[in-house]
Amino acid sequence: MITFALDCAGKTAGVAILKDDTLLYESYLATGFTHSETLLVLINSTFTATNLTPADVTCYAVTSGPGSFTGLRIGLALIKGLAFAHNTPCVAVSTLEGLAMSCVIPQGTVLCALDARRNEVYYAAFEKNQESYSRLCKDSAGPALEVLSAFKNCKKPLMLIGDGAKICYNMLENKCDTLLYPADYRSGRAGSVARIGFAEFMAGRAICAAQLQPCYLRLSQAERERKEKLAASQAN
Amino acid sequence: MITFALDCAGKTAGVAILKDDTLLYESYLATGFTHSETLLVLINSTFTATNLTPADVTCYAVTSGPGSFTGLRIGLALIKGLAFAHNTPCVAVSTLEGLAMSCVIPQGTVLCALDARRNEVYYAAFEKNQESYSRLCKDSAGPALEVLSAFKNCKKPLMLIGDGAKICYNMLENKCDTLLYPADYRSGRAGSVARIGFAEFMAGRAICAAQLQPCYLRLSQAERERKEKLAASQAN
Repeated sequence: MITFALDCAGKTAGVAILKDDTLLYESYLATGFTHSETLLVLINSTFTATNLTPADVTCYAVTSGPGSFTGLRIGLALIKGLAFAHNTPCVAVSTLEGLAMSCVIPQGTVLCALDARRNEVYYAAFEKNQESYSRLCKDSAGPALEVLSAFKNCKKPLMLIGDGAKICYNMLENKCDTLLYPADYRSGRAGSVARIGFAEFMAGRAICAAQLQPCYLRLSQAERERKEKLAASQAN
Repeated sequence: MITFALDCAGKTAGVAILKDDTLLYESYLATGFTHSETLLVLINSTFTATNLTPADVTCYAVTSGPGSFTGLRIGLALIKGLAFAHNTPCVAVSTLEGLAMSCVIPQGTVLCALDARRNEVYYAAFEKNQESYSRLCKDSAGPALEVLSAFKNCKKPLMLIGDGAKICYNMLENKCDTLLYPADYRSGRAGSVARIGFAEFMAGRAICAAQLQPCYLRLSQAERERKEKLAASQAN
């Protein structure tokens, strides 16, 4: 069984292939070029290096949010296209859960944070114990300071991961028992997305390409401004 | 400044690119195909994805051993060829130091072990403290049981990493305070080789392609058998 995973929910991009439960291939790109320029190159390299084609893929896993709205749309559209061609099952993976799975600390709390701009983060927290992790809260969005305060009394060490990790870390007055995940691995790896996709597929929770949906958690800037305008015009 | 790193000292292969001290690209391949089949594809993908060419590379870093004799020869020959074309400086990186650098545990002892067959391992140990690590012994080869016994009283947790990690772990009678690095990351990542190469280059310790040498640590099977035969004929 082949699981193909794609992550482009943030500024970096990653692709991975699992054969059954073995990681065959993983790539990570952080050049700053747009996903629309780089993703097809990355995906093509993945198939070439592993000597596989889309017809060999049993399941596609893709980070479906939270994250950059444009990134999520590009990633989901791309996977929908690949999966549609062979009617391949898909799994939508929480970007934050993918990050937690990438974090290899033996134990403690993993706070996954994505930069949601304006000092806010998308976040979720997990308690890690060796190879298992349990979710402490659902995927949410909120001001970084409030998020940190909510996990003040969590099991230590508190490990911060994700492209919003540094925002949180820099806000902390007391950095004792809090660690910033090493920069090279802070945006996670697509192999973790593949692992979650494989587990969900095996648990019978895969869906068809048409059912894949982004999970934005917030309104887009355009929707927010439209709502504010409407509210203002109703107030007048 | 661009650092290009290659690791094919074991069964897996990896390529990475650092721009100054930022990881731009990293790939990892564990399909089991031979390096001679896969490496040029991986290297080509790396240049395509990052929009770079060999002329842009400031320094090549390559794992020079210990490891599979054939893997080391392929990797070094390939890097020598690439570097020779533009007279690019090179850094020979210890495979075991690359593994230690890949290990992101906050603190404890990292025992890097590569399968040297016949229940022996190539090994080195490092004490980890946040982002820094200090070497506890030089790269060596020896029976896995003796190696484990030598690090019985090290700073805990003892983290085992490398393709010889499981051999060691399975031999341990008391597994308390000893951890096996997660399978997906157990063979390390080329990004770490790039980081070491970058640091060595900046410290003025790069060499020219012709000076790159493998570090086998042991005689090859052919050399060992020849020596045994010679000794036997001299004894007669």
